[in-house]
Amino acid sequence: MFVPGLIERKRDGGALGPAEWRDLLAAYADGRIPDYQMAALLMACFLRGLAREETAALLDGMLASGSRLDFAHLGRPVVDKHSTGGVGDKVSLVLAPLVAACGVAVPMMSGRGLGHTGGTLDKLESIPGFRTDLSLEETKAQIDRVGCAMIGQTPEIAPVDKRLYALRDVTATVECIPLIAASIMSKKLAEGLTGLVLDVKQGSGAFITDPEKSRELAETMIRLGEDRGCPTVALLTAMDRPLGRACGNALEAEEAIMSLRGEGPQDLHDVTLALGVEMLLLAGEAEAADAAARLEEAIGSGKAAEKFEAIIEAQGGNPAVVEDPALLPQAECVEVYYAPSAGTIVEVEPRAIGRAVVQMGGGRQQVDDAVDPTVGFVITARPGQEVHTSEPLASIFARDEAGVALARAALDRAIKIGEGRAAPLPLVAARVTAKGVEDLV
Amino acid sequence: MFVPGLIERKRDGGALGPAEWRDLLAAYADGRIPDYQMAALLMACFLRGLAREETAALLDGMLASGSRLDFAHLGRPVVDKHSTGGVGDKVSLVLAPLVAACGVAVPMMSGRGLGHTGGTLDKLESIPGFRTDLSLEETKAQIDRVGCAMIGQTPEIAPVDKRLYALRDVTATVECIPLIAASIMSKKLAEGLTGLVLDVKQGSGAFITDPEKSRELAETMIRLGEDRGCPTVALLTAMDRPLGRACGNALEAEEAIMSLRGEGPQDLHDVTLALGVEMLLLAGEAEAADAAARLEEAIGSGKAAEKFEAIIEAQGGNPAVVEDPALLPQAECVEVYYAPSAGTIVEVEPRAIGRAVVQMGGGRQQVDDAVDPTVGFVITARPGQEVHTSEPLASIFARDEAGVALARAALDRAIKIGEGRAAPLPLVAARVTAKGVEDLV
Repeated sequence: MFVPGLIERKRDGGALGPAEWRDLLAAYADGRIPDYQMAALLMACFLRGLAREETAALLDGMLASGSRLDFAHLGRPVVDKHSTGGVGDKVSLVLAPLVAACGVAVPMMSGRGLGHTGGTLDKLESIPGFRTDLSLEETKAQIDRVGCAMIGQTPEIAPVDKRLYALRDVTATVECIPLIAASIMSKKLAEGLTGLVLDVKQGSGAFITDPEKSRELAETMIRLGEDRGCPTVALLTAMDRPLGRACGNALEAEEAIMSLRGEGPQDLHDVTLALGVEMLLLAGEAEAADAAARLEEAIGSGKAAEKFEAIIEAQGGNPAVVEDPALLPQAECVEVYYAPSAGTIVEVEPRAIGRAVVQMGGGRQQVDDAVDPTVGFVITARPGQEVHTSEPLASIFARDEAGVALARAALDRAIKIGEGRAAPLPLVAARVTAKGVEDLV
Repeated sequence: MFVPGLIERKRDGGALGPAEWRDLLAAYADGRIPDYQMAALLMACFLRGLAREETAALLDGMLASGSRLDFAHLGRPVVDKHSTGGVGDKVSLVLAPLVAACGVAVPMMSGRGLGHTGGTLDKLESIPGFRTDLSLEETKAQIDRVGCAMIGQTPEIAPVDKRLYALRDVTATVECIPLIAASIMSKKLAEGLTGLVLDVKQGSGAFITDPEKSRELAETMIRLGEDRGCPTVALLTAMDRPLGRACGNALEAEEAIMSLRGEGPQDLHDVTLALGVEMLLLAGEAEAADAAARLEEAIGSGKAAEKFEAIIEAQGGNPAVVEDPALLPQAECVEVYYAPSAGTIVEVEPRAIGRAVVQMGGGRQQVDDAVDPTVGFVITARPGQEVHTSEPLASIFARDEAGVALARAALDRAIKIGEGRAAPLPLVAARVTAKGVEDLV
């Protein structure tokens, strides 16, 4: 294998064959190809794109580099959800226990905060004692027993993806649809799923802001899943404003708990239910007509909240937080943010909010930064809302006055008050399956 | 400095500022930026290009990374020539002593064989005992004494260029005009020249085969040189066939010696003289009317050959090779290649010849391969020549029968005999200066 020749072909817009991708990833996995050659190839992939067959070969190479879970012995459907990430997106914390409470096995493998977006693992770890670093054996045992585990990527799962991802992060090669799709699907398909639901975010706070491209990402992932025997469905949902009201790890954990108890914000509830319906349908656990009702029943009866308690307990956390979210860590400084002027809220820009949470200490600027679970925002202002001067729009949760100042400046930028009309994206815009795109608005 | 942000900007077609390039190269030089980030940036540069100011900043950063020679104390002009490389291009071995014999100081820093092209250092080292690894002090002393030194890139000269070049070689980012131009000029400007002549090759055997692009490369290098106070002139010369007859290290050294004695092939003589005239003009050592005559006189009088003897002696080699080229190492197997059919020689394709020399052992496939000085070709066939079947077209010099077989196959591919007309490029097609392009045909 002459690596510069392969890089050159991709650089000039050509394609590598399946055997070439397989050998390349295997050689990278065992250290025969250095990071600098892979970095040059990734940049060439970013700028030249990957053919459909190449994306598939890349995915297969990643899958081949690690273990795959197998839940055949459970004799029941195993379904997971993946979100492309956003600000205030705590859906996983609600959805996993909710769907598990309906009898579906959910081996949910999540990530950490990345860039301006939060991460499910960081939110879970704001629950005192909660362990997300279960071994593969512990994960399997917990799914057998509780029906759900919420973990990070284990070393056995797609290790080449893990190295490639770290390399992409420092070489400006993250936002590339085929690379994103293969990376996500390598982790999800290794979970041994019988079905997968994707929450592909659209809008300024999403990783991919171009709606055309988020649709393309959904289609690419669906094709990869279906071709490998995993029925896959995607919903395109709004990320032109934060989802729900809370942004920040413990604040989002609290909001997720409220939502599991039926007391959360409407948009969070609606997105969670839409995704949950797809999961139940893929699992064959419900008909289209009664799936939503099954989920509502699990919330109303308290079963969903109980399932979350069971998961927290199984993973070493304090399950009492579900009854009493005040047991979650609390911020030092809490201040209210008031509308600086009157008018219509035209926009609540999520990227500025997400970045502020990171800068306040709630996310990582360096890979090994500690995360402060307490900081963030609860933003009640919604696009389209009429406000008068000095009306409360948000609460700020910070470590100190410097954090408060930073948060105020971010809210000044993010919350746009004007005379115009707000034009927020539809909360759930479309449903994408192997058969095509179904607009829901 | 947030390196992924800089890579991202270049990836998206933006430009980095002078201070950014300077800091980036300084950080790369002292190991604060890893090769993988530089490799991603280089690929982005390759595919997105560099603005004029960026190329200049890149060059300045490379120059700043090392030492610069200073020959002001000599009180005479210091001029060098650089060739973009080709097959059979032994011009440096003739030109350096020839121009030095005319009173110009020539600190000639050359490279090794690269890809299908030969390298001046490898050719010089075929002379028994010849050392090309002089220190900077030795080089200066020799130029004071002899007026010329023929050396490799020392560790003090543009060390960042050396690392970048090695990285580009293994990441398929070599053939990029701004990167090539900055790399060449960083070495040449560090020589402390009062003038520089560039031999930019055109045609299938050149690194850059597109004539448009070789002109652009010439213009880019001229601008870089002139902007830094080094008058720079380029000639665009033919590399659609080997230059001269000999291809292979010792064979080329022999042909260079014959040319210094006035007994070499016409095309080699003509290109050498054209470049020599430019060097004398830049040095102010001759007027346009008599420069060529000065050079012819240095050859005819034996002074040029004597200067080469002095250089060889000063660098530890056996100067007797100039009187008796049979003292150069000789190949084990010598065989004649005959025309397989009658017709017109339409093409003698240089790339196939250059690759064959490498495969026969006369170049490197890996960076630390030993080079066999004896192997190669002497090709008498010229494009446009009418040949009859079984007429001798070339001699093959090989280590063994396998080498001969490989060489025959290469000649079968390279020498195209047909009914068509040959359309070789003009030997010296154009002269490029800061004022513009002057076509010479």
